[in-house]
Amino acid sequence: MKVFTASLTLESSARTEVSDVTSLVKAAIGPFGVSTGLALVNTLHTTCGLFVNEFQSALVEDLQSLMGRLVPDRGGYRHDDPRISDCERGNARAHLRAALFGRTIALGVSHGDLTLGQFQSVIFAELDGPRRREISIQVIGE
Amino acid sequence: MKVFTASLTLESSARTEVSDVTSLVKAAIGPFGVSTGLALVNTLHTTCGLFVNEFQSALVEDLQSLMGRLVPDRGGYRHDDPRISDCERGNARAHLRAALFGRTIALGVSHGDLTLGQFQSVIFAELDGPRRREISIQVIGE
Amino acid sequence: MKVFTASLTLESSARTEVSDVTSLVKAAIGPFGVSTGLALVNTLHTTCGLFVNEFQSALVEDLQSLMGRLVPDRGGYRHDDPRISDCERGNARAHLRAALFGRTIALGVSHGDLTLGQFQSVIFAELDGPRRREISIQVIGE
Repeated sequence: MKVFTASLTLESSARTEVSDVTSLVKAAIGPFGVSTGLALVNTLHTTCGLFVNEFQSALVEDLQSLMGRLVPDRGGYRHDDPRISDCERGNARAHLRAALFGRTIALGVSHGDLTLGQFQSVIFAELDGPRRREISIQVIGE
Repeated sequence: MKVFTASLTLESSARTEVSDVTSLVKAAIGPFGVSTGLALVNTLHTTCGLFVNEFQSALVEDLQSLMGRLVPDRGGYRHDDPRISDCERGNARAHLRAALFGRTIALGVSHGDLTLGQFQSVIFAELDGPRRREISIQVIGE
Repeated sequence: MKVFTASLTLESSARTEVSDVTSLVKAAIGPFGVSTGLALVNTLHTTCGLFVNEFQSALVEDLQSLMGRLVPDRGGYRHDDPRISDCERGNARAHLRAALFGRTIALGVSHGDLTLGQFQSVIFAELDGPRRREISIQVIGE
């Protein structure tokens, strides 16, 4: 049994951007040669989401609409009010969407590959870009 | 320290169905004989939820109401529009509810059993049934 | 490779209370002497949230507003209706908010410390206090 760590860097190019990072995560953990175990995938940021779902363009638009409906761009957020907050980015919506849509993924590893269903992708959601972002990966197994 | 994997198959019998799968998960991991460690429980599907909460019938109805209020059955979803999507099930609501209510559970194992509080159950939510569903389990420990 | 477990007890002092527990979690896992691995942090309760985000007072207020908007205090919940439920606390809102905002955190451990980004804190949300609460921690690594 061994433990391995890796990190991925992503460059987002828009304020909000939803990407399929499955192949990047697989490429990062492949060299570890772990046949059976588990993989942990985390962003190191508070304004990004990370989750597993189907990556289909129409569904991604539905997901972005849902985020905008549950957490509107302008919601009178205190975090965005310069009189009471030192945040200059006006990004409360990004923090709140990240809180709702998660940022930790823990997945099985079997036969040397991520245990994902037929329609499952690892999806990274940039919610306050464009920025350089980091994803941290741990793999434990044998 | 060892790693074990198992999978569970469930047959749902309704479009939406919320089940307590705690005893199924415990039965699956019991034979591994792991005294101390952790267990990862994932669905392999993009239209199911998996989370920990109290399993009480009135609360389950409240949870289903909440899902319906935050993600209505008919929300004009692009994923469900045959002109722009190849999805024939009209199940955008199931994907979006799954994205909100999660699908990964990571729990401790101690004294050979899942570390759950008095009122905690492992709850599986079928959001686009009836179908056969698979749950993937990894246990690492000693 | 070894596995360690710990538990933390918190005393909340209000019905709803959001706390930064990063230093408590770090203090609990430090003595294990794990250099590289992963840490699992779970509440053992169904009416608490646990997640990672920036801990800034204005943002915490925004988060509490969001919870109240998505899951109102009084929502005609069946769980709170004494005619159909044996729950005497009227705490459906706490269960539903916990279901939305999560209760599992899995984080990497590297160089003997939690792998957290610059603005990331481990945040515990008491949603039905005041009460004594327990957090369960597992660390696996070497």
